[in-house]
Amino acid sequence: MAVDRKEQIYETATQLFAWRGYNGASVRDIARQLDLQGGSLYSHITTKEELLWTILERAADQFLGVIEPIAWSDLSPAEKLRAAVHAHVGVVASNLEAATVYFHEWKFLTRPRREQFLARRRLYEHAMRAIVSEGVAAGVFRPQIDPTFATLAVLSIVNWLSTWYDPDGPLSPAEIADTFLSLLLNGLLVPEALSEEVPS
Amino acid sequence: MAVDRKEQIYETATQLFAWRGYNGASVRDIARQLDLQGGSLYSHITTKEELLWTILERAADQFLGVIEPIAWSDLSPAEKLRAAVHAHVGVVASNLEAATVYFHEWKFLTRPRREQFLARRRLYEHAMRAIVSEGVAAGVFRPQIDPTFATLAVLSIVNWLSTWYDPDGPLSPAEIADTFLSLLLNGLLVPEALSEEVPS
Repeated sequence: MAVDRKEQIYETATQLFAWRGYNGASVRDIARQLDLQGGSLYSHITTKEELLWTILERAADQFLGVIEPIAWSDLSPAEKLRAAVHAHVGVVASNLEAATVYFHEWKFLTRPRREQFLARRRLYEHAMRAIVSEGVAAGVFRPQIDPTFATLAVLSIVNWLSTWYDPDGPLSPAEIADTFLSLLLNGLLVPEALSEEVPS
Repeated sequence: MAVDRKEQIYETATQLFAWRGYNGASVRDIARQLDLQGGSLYSHITTKEELLWTILERAADQFLGVIEPIAWSDLSPAEKLRAAVHAHVGVVASNLEAATVYFHEWKFLTRPRREQFLARRRLYEHAMRAIVSEGVAAGVFRPQIDPTFATLAVLSIVNWLSTWYDPDGPLSPAEIADTFLSLLLNGLLVPEALSEEVPS
């Protein structure tokens, strides 16, 4: 069926772009993987970049689809952060190859799609930063927190997951999310050491 | 001079591998960038993989060269963490393209070099984990800290830097390192909220 075939093409393209990089996987490679002729593949898609664009759009939909309802919900800031980290870890863990393409291969989009992609990624970062800012404003997160850097730290940890996550590893995505949340919320230092300045 | 020419080749290969990915940059591309014939390039190098290997070895030397003296020094655990984060951020910020290749393109090494590379990366992680473990053992870092996950969190933040660091940005590498250290050491929560469980 044509719809299934198109989905197979996206799935195979996602894998090959994640494993070999966008520049290392040709339309011919994708066709070969599916036992199709290159020409036959082009009856389903127009260009290799269109495949990349669709993969990135879908991934952006998933990431934005989970964070936006959380960021603009009635939860407390700490609950929002917890929900957002769990949701992000869940999206990465259950779409490891699409997440890898999302984090690294977007740079091969040409304009204006590159700008469209980055605008959506900024929406995501904006939602995460709003959670952190709200926590600082509510007096739950420390007043010294720089929301932009704290957001970068949170996103670094949950994005880097795509480089090491093993579905057969000992911890579930929810356990991984909780472990990182505890560290992000409470820090490394024991409470008695907290008032100390960072040693210089 | 031959030595300079070889260094130019490594430099150009590092840039092209970082920008286009290892699979997206051919030896011919590297030669063209240097106004060389492909054949002339092969009088300096044997294979494209040898270029990748040399770039990765040098980056691994840099990362290991900064962390090992810190990890096995007489500094306190918190001072070691501070020194290690500063050193890592410094290596990434001053070798952005080599760091990008180090973090992402190593997977295109064939065996046994792939295993040799991963063994050296594990040495680095081991040194960072030793710092965290020492802090927990000394009672400076919280007893609940899982050194493996805390190490992953630290490395996520300092490695992800390679995706967003802008040499023309407002903060110096040292300021970036201090901002992340403060967050990692003290956490997001105000001290009064620290005893609270992560909201479920």
